Amino acid sequence: MLIDSAAFATTAEGAHMITVFSTTDGSPSQRASGTYTGELWRDAPTTDEHGVTVGNVFFTPCARTHWHSHPGGQLLIIEHGEGFVGDRERATRVVAGDIVWTPPNVEHWHGATSERSMMHTAVTFGGVSWGDAVSDNQYAAGNEADPSRA
Amino acid sequence: MLIDSAAFATTAEGAHMITVFSTTDGSPSQRASGTYTGELWRDAPTTDEHGVTVGNVFFTPCARTHWHSHPGGQLLIIEHGEGFVGDRERATRVVAGDIVWTPPNVEHWHGATSERSMMHTAVTFGGVSWGDAVSDNQYAAGNEADPSRA
Repeated sequence: MLIDSAAFATTAEGAHMITVFSTTDGSPSQRASGTYTGELWRDAPTTDEHGVTVGNVFFTPCARTHWHSHPGGQLLIIEHGEGFVGDRERATRVVAGDIVWTPPNVEHWHGATSERSMMHTAVTFGGVSWGDAVSDNQYAAGNEADPSRA
Repeated sequence: MLIDSAAFATTAEGAHMITVFSTTDGSPSQRASGTYTGELWRDAPTTDEHGVTVGNVFFTPCARTHWHSHPGGQLLIIEHGEGFVGDRERATRVVAGDIVWTPPNVEHWHGATSERSMMHTAVTFGGVSWGDAVSDNQYAAGNEADPSRA
């Protein structure tokens, strides 16, 4: 266990106040496309003046993001269903109640399992850098992940 | 809106993997004391190798933390009830569904309202630095906060 305050950011100048994000605002939910595989739905994400973005994503079975990374890392709060988070070393099965931390600049993907939908809240620090689609082979490896959590 | 990747951390060397926290583990829930006012209950928090800590806290009415700050900031996910988050400039009323970002090293406090309990999941980056108790006057100011959200 490493607790090293130097490992964490000092935020931009002027980033001295608390931000409250409401995830129950009435902004329209939309089909997401372009950097995703399969059918998924997003609520319009909100970004504060510190570059922190909050948004909800619903993945239908088999739907997933492309590979991507975040300059400041990303926190996922799994709200419903069952899915995977994968990095270049492995894929891990996640269920409602799990919280996932992906460190800054780590390439990763997330999505539903092949049989269950998955909804998560994503809290993203500093934007996103998109890469290639997650191939069917890479996704299939996720379906083999962590049978103990299945 | 400022999206400045330089504003965010590069994590400690070796922090290259995703962490999955389960918030449904069976660790014992305990009364919290020392740096809190009033009665509150915590699940044992879990800390990963990046210094990210996840834990749930249940505040009974009027219960709140002392003033404190976090070297890497803190994210609160309001799961139940109604409460306040306060910094040195103001207090804000929060409800279930809200997500709160407190930037690194910003002094703040959180707690229930005087009439409702509040449960949140806290995701803390880099530990905590504790200060004084939130006085009854400071807490009362919270009760006047943001009537539009009440």
